[in-house]
Amino acid sequence: MTDTALDLAQKLIACPSVTPATGAVFDALEAMLTPLGFEVLRTVDGEEPDGPVENLLAVRKGPENSRHFAFAGHLDVVPAGHGWSTDPFEPEVRGELLYGRGAVDMKSQVAAMAAAAARIPAEAGTISFLITGDEEGPAMFGTRALMKHMAQRNVVPDLCLVGEPTSVNRLGDMMKIGRRGSVNIWLEVHGTEGHVAYPHLAENPIPKMVAMLAELDALVLDEGTDWFQPSNLEITEMEVGNPATNVIPAVAKARLSIRFNDLHTGAELSDLVTKIAEKHGGIARPVISGEPFLTEPGTFSSLLADAIRAETGVEPELSTSGGTSDARFLKDVCPVIEFGPCNATMHKRDEAIAIPDLETLTRIYERTARAALAL
Amino acid sequence: MTDTALDLAQKLIACPSVTPATGAVFDALEAMLTPLGFEVLRTVDGEEPDGPVENLLAVRKGPENSRHFAFAGHLDVVPAGHGWSTDPFEPEVRGELLYGRGAVDMKSQVAAMAAAAARIPAEAGTISFLITGDEEGPAMFGTRALMKHMAQRNVVPDLCLVGEPTSVNRLGDMMKIGRRGSVNIWLEVHGTEGHVAYPHLAENPIPKMVAMLAELDALVLDEGTDWFQPSNLEITEMEVGNPATNVIPAVAKARLSIRFNDLHTGAELSDLVTKIAEKHGGIARPVISGEPFLTEPGTFSSLLADAIRAETGVEPELSTSGGTSDARFLKDVCPVIEFGPCNATMHKRDEAIAIPDLETLTRIYERTARAALAL
Repeated sequence: MTDTALDLAQKLIACPSVTPATGAVFDALEAMLTPLGFEVLRTVDGEEPDGPVENLLAVRKGPENSRHFAFAGHLDVVPAGHGWSTDPFEPEVRGELLYGRGAVDMKSQVAAMAAAAARIPAEAGTISFLITGDEEGPAMFGTRALMKHMAQRNVVPDLCLVGEPTSVNRLGDMMKIGRRGSVNIWLEVHGTEGHVAYPHLAENPIPKMVAMLAELDALVLDEGTDWFQPSNLEITEMEVGNPATNVIPAVAKARLSIRFNDLHTGAELSDLVTKIAEKHGGIARPVISGEPFLTEPGTFSSLLADAIRAETGVEPELSTSGGTSDARFLKDVCPVIEFGPCNATMHKRDEAIAIPDLETLTRIYERTARAALAL
Repeated sequence: MTDTALDLAQKLIACPSVTPATGAVFDALEAMLTPLGFEVLRTVDGEEPDGPVENLLAVRKGPENSRHFAFAGHLDVVPAGHGWSTDPFEPEVRGELLYGRGAVDMKSQVAAMAAAAARIPAEAGTISFLITGDEEGPAMFGTRALMKHMAQRNVVPDLCLVGEPTSVNRLGDMMKIGRRGSVNIWLEVHGTEGHVAYPHLAENPIPKMVAMLAELDALVLDEGTDWFQPSNLEITEMEVGNPATNVIPAVAKARLSIRFNDLHTGAELSDLVTKIAEKHGGIARPVISGEPFLTEPGTFSSLLADAIRAETGVEPELSTSGGTSDARFLKDVCPVIEFGPCNATMHKRDEAIAIPDLETLTRIYERTARAALAL
């Protein structure tokens, strides 16, 4: 195989795969991995409304008792949106940039992983690809389902690299050794509707909601840890929906989002908010999207940092900032770290990756995998 | 003229006149008043969007230098709504009740006023009818416009009775000697949209709005007066409109309604709320619907109470409770008091007035007018 990461990235971008991804984009990846000696399992998991979802598990076994290194990522992309200067699903090279939806989140990285695997002999150890078609969507039947298939087949990596775009200003300046957890909580207070001229006949739910939100907004969850910024609560919605100026409404609703570090669990924070909501006569409905994870700095982060430094001269920051990723699931299998290109155009129009970065990234992935297999 | 108040009320109810009222219902009233010697002026006032509105000013002049008593009211009605057991615009007598939209708010009262006027000789003094087609709507070109026509024609009553349905449990138990003022205030806080995972790049407007609403909700405007209950502030709406759980929104909106007594003005309360809004980084847009009015207990309330007591044996409470009415405008012309039948079915389906009450009300109106003209 002589395809470069750029060739492979273009092939993947050319397959429209707005979340949940299915079909052609997986065919394209399978066609890359099979010639490299990977055994490819493709599954369709889950049912409506959060499924079905297509997933791909590819394993190239190394010698008996060799180490096992996993590349993880996703082939689904967010919708293109409007205002692109190119066709978002027609990869286009202009100058030093490759344009297309998924160019940084994260088809280029899957391509770089495949190009890296092509350069590593099977004798170096076991390499696997854990690729889902639903990371950008509900993610109910994506990596979670993949992990079930892995368990059934006894596929247990020693280390896993997720290719999310973690770099900020230049390739290599940041890796993610952890992510905060996330819980969204819906709040409601019920009262009694009435006329504003006769407030004694009504019970306005809004003052209770305001008092509840004021108390929640004043919470200091923690001061942060060595590796995590402080946990943060944001009120993201308030809704009454009362068009009548002379009516006291019956219900007030709100919603908040907590991103939290490893001093907390989703359940504990849900309990805390529920107690405050109930104190103010309201109810809370929490939905936990993910628990925090942390891969303590050590062997894995060091060998990745070595690879980044060797290829770019940049010293990567070890960060736990930002949103959630599928690492929140994979951390239950083995230590996981995320590293990928600059995320400036992620989810935006004219998403693009610097072509020299794509080649450098391939070499970083190759070095990292080789070092991990040699441990 | 031998028509009873019941006959007249049925004629008015039979003319559908959902606000703003025009045409037929005014023709019907004109046909009642002209034979009684009233000079009837009908006008169409105002333009889109709050107009045009039809109004009627009828005057029957008494002897030179006689007193002048005015009956005020409206011929528009609120929409019928659903679930009536009769046709809301087909007056129907069943047992002792007259059913129809406007039966208590307030076509029956206009009919009772006309029937009362028929019983009073022109020599007793000047009587006028100040009747608008827009009291239930924006009221921008209703009684306000009527007052301009009155001023142009030098029509200046000494006392004015508004026929709003003020009785609660039985006819005569309450008159309104005042009404609270009303101001609605729209609130907004602008921030900067962003992702909940990167709160330092966003500026959430909701905590500022919550703090603003908490401070506004805690305001104690006053403790009430001899004649007014305490002024009251109700938050009636909160709106962000953010469907995305992971997005910090750009704008938070809310709305409140203040019903206030004569210790305040709309402008002063608007200033107070605006200052609090601005303190929390927000803006306030007040719309004053009406200033409070009070006709201090005295000659007018006494002669009305005498009439009520004589006809019903009930001692009326002098109240300032409830919503606004056109008395908020007429108080600028002369002392004004409101009195009418029980308001239990006002604005509701199967709106109905007790037929014996309609006759009693006519006699109360007659007694009151005679007494006022004899002052």
